[in-house]
Amino acid sequence: MTVRRAPTATPLPPSRGTLHGVGVGPGAPDLMTLRAARLIGAAEVIAYPTLAGGESFARAIAAELIPEGVTEVAMDVPMTVERGPAQAAYDTGAAEIAAHLDAGRDVVCLCEGDPFFYGSFMYLFARLSAHYDVEVVPGVTSVTACAARARMPLAARNERLTVLPGPLPANELRARIDGAESVVVMKVGRHLAKIRDVIADLGLLEAAIYVERATLGDERVTPLAEAPEKAPYFSMILITKGADPWL
Amino acid sequence: MTVRRAPTATPLPPSRGTLHGVGVGPGAPDLMTLRAARLIGAAEVIAYPTLAGGESFARAIAAELIPEGVTEVAMDVPMTVERGPAQAAYDTGAAEIAAHLDAGRDVVCLCEGDPFFYGSFMYLFARLSAHYDVEVVPGVTSVTACAARARMPLAARNERLTVLPGPLPANELRARIDGAESVVVMKVGRHLAKIRDVIADLGLLEAAIYVERATLGDERVTPLAEAPEKAPYFSMILITKGADPWL
Repeated sequence: MTVRRAPTATPLPPSRGTLHGVGVGPGAPDLMTLRAARLIGAAEVIAYPTLAGGESFARAIAAELIPEGVTEVAMDVPMTVERGPAQAAYDTGAAEIAAHLDAGRDVVCLCEGDPFFYGSFMYLFARLSAHYDVEVVPGVTSVTACAARARMPLAARNERLTVLPGPLPANELRARIDGAESVVVMKVGRHLAKIRDVIADLGLLEAAIYVERATLGDERVTPLAEAPEKAPYFSMILITKGADPWL
Repeated sequence: MTVRRAPTATPLPPSRGTLHGVGVGPGAPDLMTLRAARLIGAAEVIAYPTLAGGESFARAIAAELIPEGVTEVAMDVPMTVERGPAQAAYDTGAAEIAAHLDAGRDVVCLCEGDPFFYGSFMYLFARLSAHYDVEVVPGVTSVTACAARARMPLAARNERLTVLPGPLPANELRARIDGAESVVVMKVGRHLAKIRDVIADLGLLEAAIYVERATLGDERVTPLAEAPEKAPYFSMILITKGADPWL
């Protein structure tokens, strides 16, 4: 008679969770990807940045899909020019996320637009990707969302596209816009007057469209010449100097 | 007694359909947006470009969602340097789509990535948007999909991003890459050797990653120095010279 022996009980190492950096798109909830929606709908722990202890735009986009009773990690990231306070906020957030991953829980980190395109997720990625499984789920960026809403094709065939952050100094913006074909200026906000002056000086005012809060209910799309005096952070200027897209 | 009179029968103009230019994302079907999936799933007529009478990558991405019995408009767009044959293909496709719109049928045009980002949809938009309702649904571009798969954050804070098509001449590529921070070279394909030489000459080979067919089953991600000799059309090179994203 053969005795079947159970295998020796060697304790498995506790299985660690995966961190998902999930782009939730530009604003309209249905511009989220199917993969993002599935991950958020099944999440046990979600993380997101908040501004000044208050709102999280990323969480607001995903709100309808977030399950009841989920654990939330809110990272309060100050918008200061000095980087120290933001670094500290990401250190704290990364530690809190790591604790969940160590306990075997997956964490879904919500990111406006795309995680690797001017997204705060890259600071968490830098802190955690060497030690944990991290998956990045790309999202629709505000760049193509604004182009869609402005009805302005961005780039065709062999055209070049340049993406510039609005906080750059005027002389650098001038040089970069002058040498470019299609241009996207991100993060316009309080830099609007400076950027508009540069574009007007270059004789490009008529080629420029201003878009704020693209794809949301209070979206605004207007020629740059008619843009408001005060622009929110989520605003953008598009310039195309390319050829007629008929061809 | 009051006689209720039916209002005079003034024939309504036949209501025209809407053309939806729908980005289906970079390749993995679940990187399509919820809006794209809804429109495709409810479509009566779908349109898409095909290569040399054969495959349509956009249709393949959406295949699982396309309803039975849908009417399909395949536009066979030749990939020639001379533009005349492609123009003729878009003329024919636009006329066929217009006939459906005139008959009151909505048309969903499938576009790889995003319709306004190096997408063929802009040629249909140029031909039809003055006469018909056209809605553009932005999609995840291959740029952020490749960055996600290469685990390479593209741009943070005040960094600039330049997108260059691979068919540009070597001297223009050299000048544009030299003056840039983060760089994406699209449509690498048969231009791989030329682009690699330029990047090597600039001493940037170690900062460059090669990605082909991002997010698909046969995806390939490798340092540019180890890229294959032959690259497919859907391949891309990413270069980041930006600062440590830890900060």
